[in-house]
Amino acid sequence: MKVFVIGLGLIGGSFALDLKASLKNVKIFGIDEREDHLEQALELGLIDTKAELNDLNIADLVFLAIPVDVSLNVLPKILDLVNDNCVVIDAGSTKEHLCKTVSSHSKRRNYLAGHPIAGTEFSGPKAAIHGLFRNKTNIICEVEKTAFKLQERALEIFQAIGMRIRYMDPASHDRHIAYVSHLSHISSFMLGKTVLEKEKNERDIFDLAGSGFASTVRLAKSSPAMWTPIFNQNKKNVMETLDEYISNLKHFRRLMEEDNFEEVFSEMERTNHIREVLNGLNKNEEFKIVENGK
Amino acid sequence: MKVFVIGLGLIGGSFALDLKASLKNVKIFGIDEREDHLEQALELGLIDTKAELNDLNIADLVFLAIPVDVSLNVLPKILDLVNDNCVVIDAGSTKEHLCKTVSSHSKRRNYLAGHPIAGTEFSGPKAAIHGLFRNKTNIICEVEKTAFKLQERALEIFQAIGMRIRYMDPASHDRHIAYVSHLSHISSFMLGKTVLEKEKNERDIFDLAGSGFASTVRLAKSSPAMWTPIFNQNKKNVMETLDEYISNLKHFRRLMEEDNFEEVFSEMERTNHIREVLNGLNKNEEFKIVENGK
Repeated sequence: MKVFVIGLGLIGGSFALDLKASLKNVKIFGIDEREDHLEQALELGLIDTKAELNDLNIADLVFLAIPVDVSLNVLPKILDLVNDNCVVIDAGSTKEHLCKTVSSHSKRRNYLAGHPIAGTEFSGPKAAIHGLFRNKTNIICEVEKTAFKLQERALEIFQAIGMRIRYMDPASHDRHIAYVSHLSHISSFMLGKTVLEKEKNERDIFDLAGSGFASTVRLAKSSPAMWTPIFNQNKKNVMETLDEYISNLKHFRRLMEEDNFEEVFSEMERTNHIREVLNGLNKNEEFKIVENGK
Repeated sequence: MKVFVIGLGLIGGSFALDLKASLKNVKIFGIDEREDHLEQALELGLIDTKAELNDLNIADLVFLAIPVDVSLNVLPKILDLVNDNCVVIDAGSTKEHLCKTVSSHSKRRNYLAGHPIAGTEFSGPKAAIHGLFRNKTNIICEVEKTAFKLQERALEIFQAIGMRIRYMDPASHDRHIAYVSHLSHISSFMLGKTVLEKEKNERDIFDLAGSGFASTVRLAKSSPAMWTPIFNQNKKNVMETLDEYISNLKHFRRLMEEDNFEEVFSEMERTNHIREVLNGLNKNEEFKIVENGK
């Protein structure tokens, strides 16, 4: 199988690694704007050979893992270039704009809109890791618009690298993912900013920070080049989550100001329920396909 | 050495474990309001025997690890009860009120005000773990008010369990720790609240949450009984950090609203500097005593 990975960062690189480890007779062709990333991807063994968009006519599968604003331009071109039996899968964190952009493309049936919920705060080919996708969720949007046999090929591959599948429409995806992913990044970036600003003249102060701070601020290491277009494309939903988050913070502050520490306690106690939710996340579930219909 | 650990939760229990592993001839006496915690601590081997406050006259060292509001009441009583050669160390996350409370106690010289920057989001005796304090920072306040030979004993013990030491005055401690610890907990609790509220009718939605959300919301699992009195005692500083955090979030929201995504990018890029700060945190430093004079 000839697989073209476009964008050899954390996600594209890890997908290439997992594919090579899970399937026989796979040849990985790498495409990236950055020559240094292509060279690194070759050296690290993420890809077998460098390629260009014009080579896409021989591809059986294309995996697109680039910033979501660039995808809007590149995905239609990819669909123009691939053959009728090729499936093109993307990995972007927003789905509504992209699905709309290609909705009337003559090769829409060759595209499968995906969003693997996997990653770290690092980026670039060197950030690629084996097994990144194992037991992680891949959200598939508008599956009915993809040709049946291409759906099947994509699902076999997701199964091979250990992903579980959830199906959603693009608008629901973007609305929910704003809460469980995009908001976390802003809360973390702004926490980092707040502490860095306050402590800029106090280098030693970070000696006082423990693992709790490190955990909460981890996502503030994420790539601005990846996240800016995500916030842009999901602006409406993200602003709504921000409004609710700010309103909750103000409420907490007001309770403190009024010395209503009984209610401060209750606020935290109610939120402790997140324990069970997170325990669910950490369960090492076997691969399963669940049609949840949302 | 007869060590009394008062409060057999995560911190007290872990201290007992590390002490037994690091020093010879240590006998651990456990005191806790909760009989079930005492029993668990015995079963888990955290303590050698149960004890009561009235036994404190035989103690060489008392380690106090209870909620900070209870410490205000209990620490003076402990100092009343211990002998002149006993050092009493606490582990609370706020230092100003407690130091003031015992400032004119006749046995002030027997007390060492400490704050080990170590912990997890779990609580109770079962949360105690070996090596919790290794390579972690212990902040010592008003060291000059502790009798010299008792300082020495305490430092030997901190060294034995692998802690590094920073010295600070109580007011600076409370101000800085509001930024690098207390604010993280509120940001995490309110993030958890925001997502739980929104998704309360959407149980499946947490299938979409990844490791980033788990990391950012981890501290929302923390104990309200521990954290409510901390926020109460450090109210002024914590409210200041909250004001700055909310202001930064509003600014980010405004940039999005104005479609100023160039500046959204810059905000994140500047905050990426937290990478180097966190790398510093993760360094597995050897034990060292640094007098940083803040």
